[in-house]
Amino acid sequence: MACNSTLEAALAAVASAAKLDVNQSAVLTDFVCGYDGRIGDAVTGTNAMFLLFSAYLVFAMQAGFGMLCAGSVRAKNALNIMLTNVMDAAAGAISFFVFGFAFAFGGGAESNAFIGDYNFAQSHFSADDALANYGMWMFQWAFAAAAAGITSGSIAERTQFTGYLAYSTFLTGFVYPVIAHWVWAPSGWISAFNTGNMFLDVGMVDFAGSGVVHMTGGIAGFMGAWIEGPRLGRFDAKGRTQEMKGHSGTLVVLGTFLLWFGWYGFNPGSLTAIVPADGVLKHAIVARAAVTTTLSGGAAALTTLFARRWMTGHWNVTDVCNGLLGGFAAVTAGCSVIEPWAAILLGFLAAWTLIGMNRLAERIKYDDPLEAFQLHGGCGLLGVVFVGLLAKKSFLMEAYGKVEGTPYGLFYGGGGKLLAAQLIGAICIAAWTAVTMGVLFYALQMFGLLRITQEEEAAGLDLTAHGNSSYVFDDGKGGQDAKLLPPDAFQAKAPVKQGTERV
Amino acid sequence: MACNSTLEAALAAVASAAKLDVNQSAVLTDFVCGYDGRIGDAVTGTNAMFLLFSAYLVFAMQAGFGMLCAGSVRAKNALNIMLTNVMDAAAGAISFFVFGFAFAFGGGAESNAFIGDYNFAQSHFSADDALANYGMWMFQWAFAAAAAGITSGSIAERTQFTGYLAYSTFLTGFVYPVIAHWVWAPSGWISAFNTGNMFLDVGMVDFAGSGVVHMTGGIAGFMGAWIEGPRLGRFDAKGRTQEMKGHSGTLVVLGTFLLWFGWYGFNPGSLTAIVPADGVLKHAIVARAAVTTTLSGGAAALTTLFARRWMTGHWNVTDVCNGLLGGFAAVTAGCSVIEPWAAILLGFLAAWTLIGMNRLAERIKYDDPLEAFQLHGGCGLLGVVFVGLLAKKSFLMEAYGKVEGTPYGLFYGGGGKLLAAQLIGAICIAAWTAVTMGVLFYALQMFGLLRITQEEEAAGLDLTAHGNSSYVFDDGKGGQDAKLLPPDAFQAKAPVKQGTERV
Amino acid sequence: MACNSTLEAALAAVASAAKLDVNQSAVLTDFVCGYDGRIGDAVTGTNAMFLLFSAYLVFAMQAGFGMLCAGSVRAKNALNIMLTNVMDAAAGAISFFVFGFAFAFGGGAESNAFIGDYNFAQSHFSADDALANYGMWMFQWAFAAAAAGITSGSIAERTQFTGYLAYSTFLTGFVYPVIAHWVWAPSGWISAFNTGNMFLDVGMVDFAGSGVVHMTGGIAGFMGAWIEGPRLGRFDAKGRTQEMKGHSGTLVVLGTFLLWFGWYGFNPGSLTAIVPADGVLKHAIVARAAVTTTLSGGAAALTTLFARRWMTGHWNVTDVCNGLLGGFAAVTAGCSVIEPWAAILLGFLAAWTLIGMNRLAERIKYDDPLEAFQLHGGCGLLGVVFVGLLAKKSFLMEAYGKVEGTPYGLFYGGGGKLLAAQLIGAICIAAWTAVTMGVLFYALQMFGLLRITQEEEAAGLDLTAHGNSSYVFDDGKGGQDAKLLPPDAFQAKAPVKQGTERV
Repeated sequence: MACNSTLEAALAAVASAAKLDVNQSAVLTDFVCGYDGRIGDAVTGTNAMFLLFSAYLVFAMQAGFGMLCAGSVRAKNALNIMLTNVMDAAAGAISFFVFGFAFAFGGGAESNAFIGDYNFAQSHFSADDALANYGMWMFQWAFAAAAAGITSGSIAERTQFTGYLAYSTFLTGFVYPVIAHWVWAPSGWISAFNTGNMFLDVGMVDFAGSGVVHMTGGIAGFMGAWIEGPRLGRFDAKGRTQEMKGHSGTLVVLGTFLLWFGWYGFNPGSLTAIVPADGVLKHAIVARAAVTTTLSGGAAALTTLFARRWMTGHWNVTDVCNGLLGGFAAVTAGCSVIEPWAAILLGFLAAWTLIGMNRLAERIKYDDPLEAFQLHGGCGLLGVVFVGLLAKKSFLMEAYGKVEGTPYGLFYGGGGKLLAAQLIGAICIAAWTAVTMGVLFYALQMFGLLRITQEEEAAGLDLTAHGNSSYVFDDGKGGQDAKLLPPDAFQAKAPVKQGTERV
Repeated sequence: MACNSTLEAALAAVASAAKLDVNQSAVLTDFVCGYDGRIGDAVTGTNAMFLLFSAYLVFAMQAGFGMLCAGSVRAKNALNIMLTNVMDAAAGAISFFVFGFAFAFGGGAESNAFIGDYNFAQSHFSADDALANYGMWMFQWAFAAAAAGITSGSIAERTQFTGYLAYSTFLTGFVYPVIAHWVWAPSGWISAFNTGNMFLDVGMVDFAGSGVVHMTGGIAGFMGAWIEGPRLGRFDAKGRTQEMKGHSGTLVVLGTFLLWFGWYGFNPGSLTAIVPADGVLKHAIVARAAVTTTLSGGAAALTTLFARRWMTGHWNVTDVCNGLLGGFAAVTAGCSVIEPWAAILLGFLAAWTLIGMNRLAERIKYDDPLEAFQLHGGCGLLGVVFVGLLAKKSFLMEAYGKVEGTPYGLFYGGGGKLLAAQLIGAICIAAWTAVTMGVLFYALQMFGLLRITQEEEAAGLDLTAHGNSSYVFDDGKGGQDAKLLPPDAFQAKAPVKQGTERV
Repeated sequence: MACNSTLEAALAAVASAAKLDVNQSAVLTDFVCGYDGRIGDAVTGTNAMFLLFSAYLVFAMQAGFGMLCAGSVRAKNALNIMLTNVMDAAAGAISFFVFGFAFAFGGGAESNAFIGDYNFAQSHFSADDALANYGMWMFQWAFAAAAAGITSGSIAERTQFTGYLAYSTFLTGFVYPVIAHWVWAPSGWISAFNTGNMFLDVGMVDFAGSGVVHMTGGIAGFMGAWIEGPRLGRFDAKGRTQEMKGHSGTLVVLGTFLLWFGWYGFNPGSLTAIVPADGVLKHAIVARAAVTTTLSGGAAALTTLFARRWMTGHWNVTDVCNGLLGGFAAVTAGCSVIEPWAAILLGFLAAWTLIGMNRLAERIKYDDPLEAFQLHGGCGLLGVVFVGLLAKKSFLMEAYGKVEGTPYGLFYGGGGKLLAAQLIGAICIAAWTAVTMGVLFYALQMFGLLRITQEEEAAGLDLTAHGNSSYVFDDGKGGQDAKLLPPDAFQAKAPVKQGTERV
């Protein structure tokens, strides 16, 4: 086993002074030197497991998105949106393998400030590389899939599947990786890890991606939904909003719980290691991130519960779920650097942000079936800004390895530099996403590849694009069934009869 | 790096005797002393990860409860009960932050025997504190949410949401934490961890909470359901039970699987550490707890399968699911201290306990839509008592750090003291819960805040309290839909038409 | 703490030479010797946690199977198939405890080459035994349950529940354990771990069970489905295939996501340890297995998406889900020994294999509601063969501890021996499963215990065998409901009215 050479020499001298025989001397050196590597192995194993299992949890969010989206749209479009959720992860794996990861993290500290340019197709992955290794790829792939999942919510129920394929590939393969590079890669221009060239002495602090993931997904969704226009019947002739309820509250709640579960990979997992090292109590940072995540979501849910009761006279579980998710989206940026009480405050603010954004959306006649822009865009922005105000000095030093003198939260007396970095970062993310995705969506619209026809929209995408429906309670085939028993005896009416006939 | 001073002196003497130069001497000390802290860090990281990921699994049970409850009630009450499941975790996070954790575990060994009184709002949390740290808070919060989830099942389909908010806050914020303090805090009067003042020389052995969580939730549910009375139509004029089937067997099975999955955090996770230490093979205790959990649930499911087939002439997956969960609730107390074969016996008994409790419930005209009292109360009690009979000496010594001479299971020749502690603990938990929750439920009932009106009950809570329904297969808006295609061509009849109109 | 005796002697001599006092000498020995055991404990804890949490993920696949199966059958058979999924894990726990594990892994290297014969009922489990310990039992039990779950898909919608109980017990208790013994036990005749008697110098390389689990489950399903014949109405009088759509695309997608999530326990978890040891970077092998799994599934999904669009003119999420799962089933054998680019190729081939198998099934009038034989049998075989072609030498050496000179993938120049071992293994698995299960299914059929009657099939198993239906949107009881509100005001028509009446 490799040994520190000074240590080896020291042990040889010790052995010689103690007149050890050759065997004793070798054993002494083997054990005492070997401990170094063996401890390193134990630490490596634990951290690798933490990163991988966190990645699995982040992947579970894809199931959450799938169920949340399905439940939030009308039954006639459920298959279509679930297919987008499956493909976000499945096709995203291929594009993130070929170029996405390279654009985001390729080249480490040596690559340029705008975009990575190395490690296409995992060409130089190594277990010794802290960034370019298989575990990290898993974690980052799951993040990229999440960003794409957000966008598909905004443009649900009226978008061609080919249009989806185009924007999804562009978003996960290029637009998102570039932002991830800016903020998280060691060479990113605004990255808090860019030790060689630290933006405003601190960089943008977006721990798990309120900006990088949620704003990106939400703003991309906004561009698509805005260019497409609202669903048919969403606003009546007088401009009044018409409710278009999703078809299953059960799926919405299931999806919310799965997202909540997965968020424990997303936020605490973003430290990417859990074993304390060099005096940094990484396990405590991870656990605190889990706590702030929980508290922010909880406070947002509780606030939404009473606010919506007060505003509408009804309790509303769907609104509570969205409020909860808004709290999570907001705390994603600062989960490792804000105090628990601040997380509760943030959740409270996130709930009102979402309510306000939804009001605004109605006013400007913006239609987003999942409230994805309002939630991920709005609460994501709130979270990014909040870090500039309430990032605690000691937490920032621990979680980011910052030194004394680094700017921190304005309200703690840490000056305005961190807040400025957060705002500049947020603006650049928003601008980059709006421009790139706006051009794409506009081009798709021009070439007739974005929005479906009115007839298709009325009939539903499941029937027109998938030739199918998500629910079939009557096989409609006759077969032996019709002869043996009266047809209504054991079967419900076909909910989507035409669908089954055309299959 | 900090070093044991004697070790440091010894190494200095060794270096001096071997005539090492300053650098060699420093390296020798750094490495050999440093190993101590580095190994500690590796262990800390692994145990922290174990506790956190176990907490995430316990949280996943909330999704399980949500789906199980939703599927077990009629469609018209699905949204309402799912909202209670979301709020158990979400609002529970805030109350458990502010005072719940402090009541349960605040103050460590110094607090009083009845209730904790320290660490409100995590005021003195520290990574060095084995109890008052962020990871432990996550784990205990998820437990508190589970207790509340049980109760909401018992009183489903007929309880005002404001009534829910009142009892849920009281239960998770006060009633449950007090019991957790008694049994699990180092200063609890009957705690098996109260080394200074050990009740009957052993304390109550309730490893993961057959008593603390399941009996508490179940008995609280009983008080509420008993005071409210049965659902309309549950018993006919002649007192015969009328089946009121839940609306979705699919959701029941999904919920059961999610609960099963989460139980692997609940039971094995309750050791709160997995790295062997001081000769205690913690990893083996954890793994054995997973095995006994699996076997007890499996035996209960198998027993229920055949027992119900024999009793009713039909196979019944819902009954099997409940039987399975009964096996889990029973083994929760003793999963770390009973042998695998005993877990199978326990599962067999749990199945019959549940069947017997359900018979009893019918006889006394007790209506519990989720069988929550019968299952969590009945099988929970069975599990607590079973430990007194079949806790194995060596397992108890390992898992609880007990010394030679400590009482253990009666059937193994360990005397009656452990059984007595179990019975006294169970009686006190039952009495405390019944009195406190009984007073609350009775007061709510008196002030008209508990039960909904007959009209509301007939219409369903989703419509009356939430202005909504869980399922919408027709958006009912007309919009463009009606004009483009014949209305029945692609849409089902609205299952809850009035609901959608009133939204 | 135990110490290596040579090390202890060396330290005593060092202490003596340095003239340490007794206390210093003891501390030096305690620490320096103690490090050995403490590091071992840390490693043990991490590896135990990795194995257990991987087992929990594999168990989650049971939830995935349950939802996938339920969604893929008609509503009238949903309860029945979900009960089989619950019992696969629950009853499987009991039979795997009593004899399944013993047949598969009992006796270690000393048992015979065909079947294990030791450790019935965990009789000699020990934390020190690398194979016969509680964590390993959990992992292997979850695998056995998965094999049974595959088979129940093939024979869905037409099989008696008693028939299910018979074949399931036989499969998980005997047929599957024997195969697991052959391929994975240290004494198995074709096992790559049989260091004493290595088949063709390499053994069969089936890392996580494309052959052992997927082919076994798929071929067992084929025998059952073939002997039973197709469902009524599946092929019309002219032999044309009639679509018999499953009743819920939502459940299919949910099930697919849960299976995907669980596969990260199944494949990477099959290394059973994650801490690097003796220079083998186990954590990198695990992470790479997660990557190849993801890429194979992703490539298969993408291929299926476009292939089916091109063939049918429609997008189809159900087909994409099955394609994805086919990619996973294929990569299960080689996930640790093939390169990421090869995993993409494999996924591409798996998609076409599944399409081809489905064509073949139609041609031979084979009816498999879940495509389980086509998917698990066909893609499983592909995966086993693929290893023989593209197992990389260095990966095989790392993951299997193979030495220089061991055969590896044909296309890398590793000769044909590995391919031969793979083919022989696949043939033996297929033959063993076909013969044993074929005899059983044929006997069941002869004694009228396999297929249900035409009347039962038309009415659906949920009604006839379970006296129930999975979905009830009308409680049909009258109670107070009918009197208070017009009956159609808040309730849907009963989808399965007769079912609820007969309950």
